[in-house]
Amino acid sequence: MPPDKPDLLDAARGHSPADMVFKNATIFNPFTGDWREGDLAVKNGIVLGTGTYTGRSERDCAGLFIIPGLIDAHVHIESSLLTPQEYARLVAPCGTTTVIADPHEIANVAGVAGIEFMLAARRDAAIDIQYMLPSCVPAAPLEKGGAILEAPDLRRFIGREGVLGLGEMMNVPGVLSGDPGIAHKLALSAIRDGHAPGLSGRDLNAYLLAGLQSDHECTSLAEAEEKLRKGMYIFLRDGSTEQNIEALIPLVTPFSVSRCCFSTDDCHPDLLMRQGHIDRCIRKAIAAGLAPELAIRMATLSPAGRFGLHDRGALVPGRRADLCIIDDPEQFAIRQVFCGGREIRSSRQTRSAPFPPSIHCQVPSPATISIAGTGQTRVIGLVPGQIVTESLRYEIDGRNIPDTKRDILKVVVCNRYGTGKCGTGLVHGFSFRQGAIAASISHDAHNIIASGVSDDEILLAISSVIQAQGGMAAVTGTSAEVLPLDCAGLMSTLHYEDVVSRLDRISTVTHEMGGIDNPFMYLSFLALTVIPALRITDRGVFDCGEFRDVPLFVE
Amino acid sequence: MPPDKPDLLDAARGHSPADMVFKNATIFNPFTGDWREGDLAVKNGIVLGTGTYTGRSERDCAGLFIIPGLIDAHVHIESSLLTPQEYARLVAPCGTTTVIADPHEIANVAGVAGIEFMLAARRDAAIDIQYMLPSCVPAAPLEKGGAILEAPDLRRFIGREGVLGLGEMMNVPGVLSGDPGIAHKLALSAIRDGHAPGLSGRDLNAYLLAGLQSDHECTSLAEAEEKLRKGMYIFLRDGSTEQNIEALIPLVTPFSVSRCCFSTDDCHPDLLMRQGHIDRCIRKAIAAGLAPELAIRMATLSPAGRFGLHDRGALVPGRRADLCIIDDPEQFAIRQVFCGGREIRSSRQTRSAPFPPSIHCQVPSPATISIAGTGQTRVIGLVPGQIVTESLRYEIDGRNIPDTKRDILKVVVCNRYGTGKCGTGLVHGFSFRQGAIAASISHDAHNIIASGVSDDEILLAISSVIQAQGGMAAVTGTSAEVLPLDCAGLMSTLHYEDVVSRLDRISTVTHEMGGIDNPFMYLSFLALTVIPALRITDRGVFDCGEFRDVPLFVE
Repeated sequence: MPPDKPDLLDAARGHSPADMVFKNATIFNPFTGDWREGDLAVKNGIVLGTGTYTGRSERDCAGLFIIPGLIDAHVHIESSLLTPQEYARLVAPCGTTTVIADPHEIANVAGVAGIEFMLAARRDAAIDIQYMLPSCVPAAPLEKGGAILEAPDLRRFIGREGVLGLGEMMNVPGVLSGDPGIAHKLALSAIRDGHAPGLSGRDLNAYLLAGLQSDHECTSLAEAEEKLRKGMYIFLRDGSTEQNIEALIPLVTPFSVSRCCFSTDDCHPDLLMRQGHIDRCIRKAIAAGLAPELAIRMATLSPAGRFGLHDRGALVPGRRADLCIIDDPEQFAIRQVFCGGREIRSSRQTRSAPFPPSIHCQVPSPATISIAGTGQTRVIGLVPGQIVTESLRYEIDGRNIPDTKRDILKVVVCNRYGTGKCGTGLVHGFSFRQGAIAASISHDAHNIIASGVSDDEILLAISSVIQAQGGMAAVTGTSAEVLPLDCAGLMSTLHYEDVVSRLDRISTVTHEMGGIDNPFMYLSFLALTVIPALRITDRGVFDCGEFRDVPLFVE
Repeated sequence: MPPDKPDLLDAARGHSPADMVFKNATIFNPFTGDWREGDLAVKNGIVLGTGTYTGRSERDCAGLFIIPGLIDAHVHIESSLLTPQEYARLVAPCGTTTVIADPHEIANVAGVAGIEFMLAARRDAAIDIQYMLPSCVPAAPLEKGGAILEAPDLRRFIGREGVLGLGEMMNVPGVLSGDPGIAHKLALSAIRDGHAPGLSGRDLNAYLLAGLQSDHECTSLAEAEEKLRKGMYIFLRDGSTEQNIEALIPLVTPFSVSRCCFSTDDCHPDLLMRQGHIDRCIRKAIAAGLAPELAIRMATLSPAGRFGLHDRGALVPGRRADLCIIDDPEQFAIRQVFCGGREIRSSRQTRSAPFPPSIHCQVPSPATISIAGTGQTRVIGLVPGQIVTESLRYEIDGRNIPDTKRDILKVVVCNRYGTGKCGTGLVHGFSFRQGAIAASISHDAHNIIASGVSDDEILLAISSVIQAQGGMAAVTGTSAEVLPLDCAGLMSTLHYEDVVSRLDRISTVTHEMGGIDNPFMYLSFLALTVIPALRITDRGVFDCGEFRDVPLFVE
C-alpha cells in the first residue's frame, strides 16, 4: 500500500478535504460514453471520485466540460526535432498527458545509450512518457547506423519504469518466416506493437499469430476493418505526412471504439505548435463525422486499456488526475490541462544538456562527390506526397550536372559514424533553381544527406550540419540557415518556439530555392533502402527491387 | 517462441494444412459484434485464422454458427457439490471453456491445502479453470473454520499457472479503514475482484480507490450503473438463488459491453444439468431483450479482457481454439464444443480421489443438544428467498421443542475441526412436519449444521454426515438419504449424474418432510455471522447486530 493510501481513503470517503475539487463540472465518462454533472475531487495527484466533495482549493466549473487527459498511442518523439522535455512542454497544453513513444530513431544512431537518454528525459517531462522498445534496429542489415539491437540488448530495459513493451515490428518477412532473432524479441514482452502496411489475408493471420497486436499503418477502411476483425488494435494516424483519420473514421463505432486509438507517429514541431496534437486528431475525427464522445474515448480509455495503463484514461477513483478542461465537446478547444493533478503551465524550462557528439565525419572533398563520365544513369525519382521513389533512367554528361532544366540534381550521403564512406547519386523532383539542403536525419541510419544545385552549396550545407553536431541546413550561395540538432543529430536542445522559428527561416530559404514543399521530408527518406524503388546510401545507389548496391551508370 | 511456432506460422500462411477446418461457417466476431462467413482453421489447439484454408480434417458448417467458447467471470465451483473435474465435465457441453473460480469454500475448510487441491484438479479438467485467490478466509474473525489465510499465505500462489489474482474482497469495512492486512492482500496482484453489495457514493469511491475492480453483487440497475460509471467491471449474475440478469440488462450497450460479463457465482448441479451454465445466462439475456451479439460478447471477449486472458475470447489468429457450434444465435442451443481444439465429449472419467478427511467430530450426545428451561428465547426467523434472517422472540418450554404448531425447531451446529464444540438454537420457518436434515456445508466455517423435528432424527442426520466424511443428509425416522461430500465436506467425488440423482432423492424426502423448498440452502447460511440478524454457531446463538454470542434464553 502506498504510504498515502489511508489518507486517500479518508478523503475519498469525505472524512477529510480533497486537495482540489472541480465543482459543478460536466464530466465525461468513458465507460458509458456520456457526460454527467458533479464535483471531481483530487488528492495527491489521484482522483478521489465524483460526487459531492469539498477541497482545500475549489474551482467552479459550471458550464465547462472535463475529460481525461489525452493519450497518443504511438509516436516517435524524435520526429518533432525536440527533446522529450520540450516535446512534452509543447503537447501538454494540447491536452496530452501520456504518450507511448518508440525511440526508434535515436536507437538507430546510438543504440542502448540513445534509449537510456530518452528514458532519463522522462524525469523532468511535463507529461508521462512511456516507451516501447525499438524492435527493428537496424530496419534491415544494410540499414545499419550506429547500432544493432538484438533481444539481449533490449532485455535490460524490460521491467524498467517507463517501458511498456516492444515497439512496432516492421520486419514482416522476418516475422512470417519465424526468424529466431525476431522471435526472441517478440518473447520479451506481452505488449507488442505491429506495423504491417497493406498486409492481409493469410499472411496477416500469420503475423498476428506471431504475437503482434496493433497497427497504425492502415490507409484504407477495408484494410483497417480486416485488421480490427482479426483482433488488432487500430491506431488512426495523423502525422505530418500520413493522414488517415478521415478514411478510417467509419471503423469507429460504439462497439469497436475500445479497440481504436489515435497515433501521431511522426509530427514536425510547427504542425504541433500550430494545429495541436491529439486534440487535433479529435477535431479531425469530429469534422469527419465521429461523435465527440467516441473520439474522446479513442484518446483516453482505449489506449489506456490497450497498453494496460489501468491507472489512467478515466476520471474515476484511484486513477491519475490527468484531465483537460474544455469549453465545448464539438469545438474541442483545450482550455486548461492537469497532469497528475498539477496544472500544466507553458513556462520554459532550462534547456536540456545535449547528447554526446554523434557526428563523426568530415566534409567530403569536391572530388569525392564529382560525377565523371557520360551515359545512361539511374536517377531516383521523387513521387509527390509519397515516400516511395521511382527508378528513372536519364542520359547524362557528368560535367552538366546539375541539370536544372531536366531537374536532375546530385544527392550525397556521408556516413556519420566514422567510416569515411560517401555515396553520390542523382535525384529528380526537388526542382530547386538554386542552393542546397543537408540534414543529419535520413532514415534509418541517419547519415548526413544533402542535395542541391551546386557542389559548393552542397558541401557548405554538409559542413554546416557537421559544425552544428547534427542539424538541418539550407544554403544559398555562401549563406547558411541552420537548425542545430545537437541530440544525436535528430533533436534540438532549443526551446520549441526557437526550433519552429528556425524551421520557418529554413523554409523561407527553401522557398527561395524554388523547389517543392517539404524538401527535407523527401530528403530524409532517400536513404531508406527498405522502401521501393531506388535509394542512395553512403555506398552509392541502391536498387530496392534487387536489394543491392548498383552503379550510377547503367552498364 | 513455442517449439511449434514455425509450424503454426507455415500453416497460418496456408503453406501446410491445418489440423481441422470448419468450412463455410458463420463466425461471430467479438471485435465488431457481427457475423461473417468463412473457413476457420485450427492447428495444435490454436486458431490459425479465418479465410480460405484446407485441413487434414474438414467439417462443413454451412448454415451453422460458430462463437468463441464461453467464459464464467466468477464462480465458486464448490457450490456445484462437484469436484472441479466433474464440474468441468458438466459445464463443457454447455459451451463453457473457461471459468474464473474462487475456491473460497474449500479454503475456509482446508486453507492452502484446499487451494492446492483445486489447482491440481486443473490438470485433468475438460475446460480451463483459472483461479482467483480467496481474499477473505475467514470472512470475519469469529467465522474461522479450518484456516486463516493472510497475505503471506496467499503469496505462494502468485505467479502459479492457473492463478489470476485476488478473489472477491468482501471485507468492505476493512478496505475502507485501510486495514494493513487487507492492504497487503490487495497488493499481491494487479487483478482484484470486488464484492460490495449496495455500496455507493463516496464509500464506493474509497473502495475503488483501494484497488477493487469488479462487482457481481449488483441487484438494481441504478447500483450497477453507478459502479460501471466509476470503473468497475460488472458481472451480471445468475445463480441458483441470486438472479440479476433481467434487472441489469439495460446496462449493457454496444458502448459498455466491453465492461460487462456473466457470472454464475453459486449454482447447484441440478440447475446446471437441466438449464445450462453461461449458455443459460445468454438465453436469459436474450429473453430480457439483449441482442445475441452483445450477450455473446459478454460471455467471451469481455471476460477475457477483464482478466488479461488475451489468448482467448475471440476466434482470431494465435488464440485458443475454444469454440461452440450453435444452430441459431436467437435460440442459442449449444450443439458442439471444442476446447483447445479438442471436441468435448461427455464420457465419464475415472472418479477423482477424495480429499483427505476433514470431518473431525463425533455425534453429539442427546444431552448436548437438549434445551432445558422455560422463558423467552431468541429464535432465528427464516425470510423466504433471502439469506438475511429475522431475530424473533418466542416464549417456550424446552420440553415442548420442537413446537411444530408454531414452527419452532432446533438447529444444531457441531464444530468439525476437532474442538468438540456444539451449539444449539431455535429456528422458525422450515415448517417441517417430520424428519431432519444435516449438512457439512454451512458458510463460511462449514461446520456440520442440522435442524429437524426430533432429536433422534437430528442426531441421525448428523451421524450420517460424519460417516460419509461430509455430506447432505435427509432423515425420516431411521431412514437416511445421503449425498456424500467426501471432498472437504463440500464436494462429491461422484459423477455429476449421480450427484443430481441423489439430490433428487434427498429432495423427495424433504418434500415428504413437508417443509419449505430448498431447506438446505437456508440451512447452509444459518451460521453466517456476517449477515443480519440472528445466527447459530458452534458456540450457540449469535446476534449479528451486537456482533456477539448471546444466550438462547433472553435474560
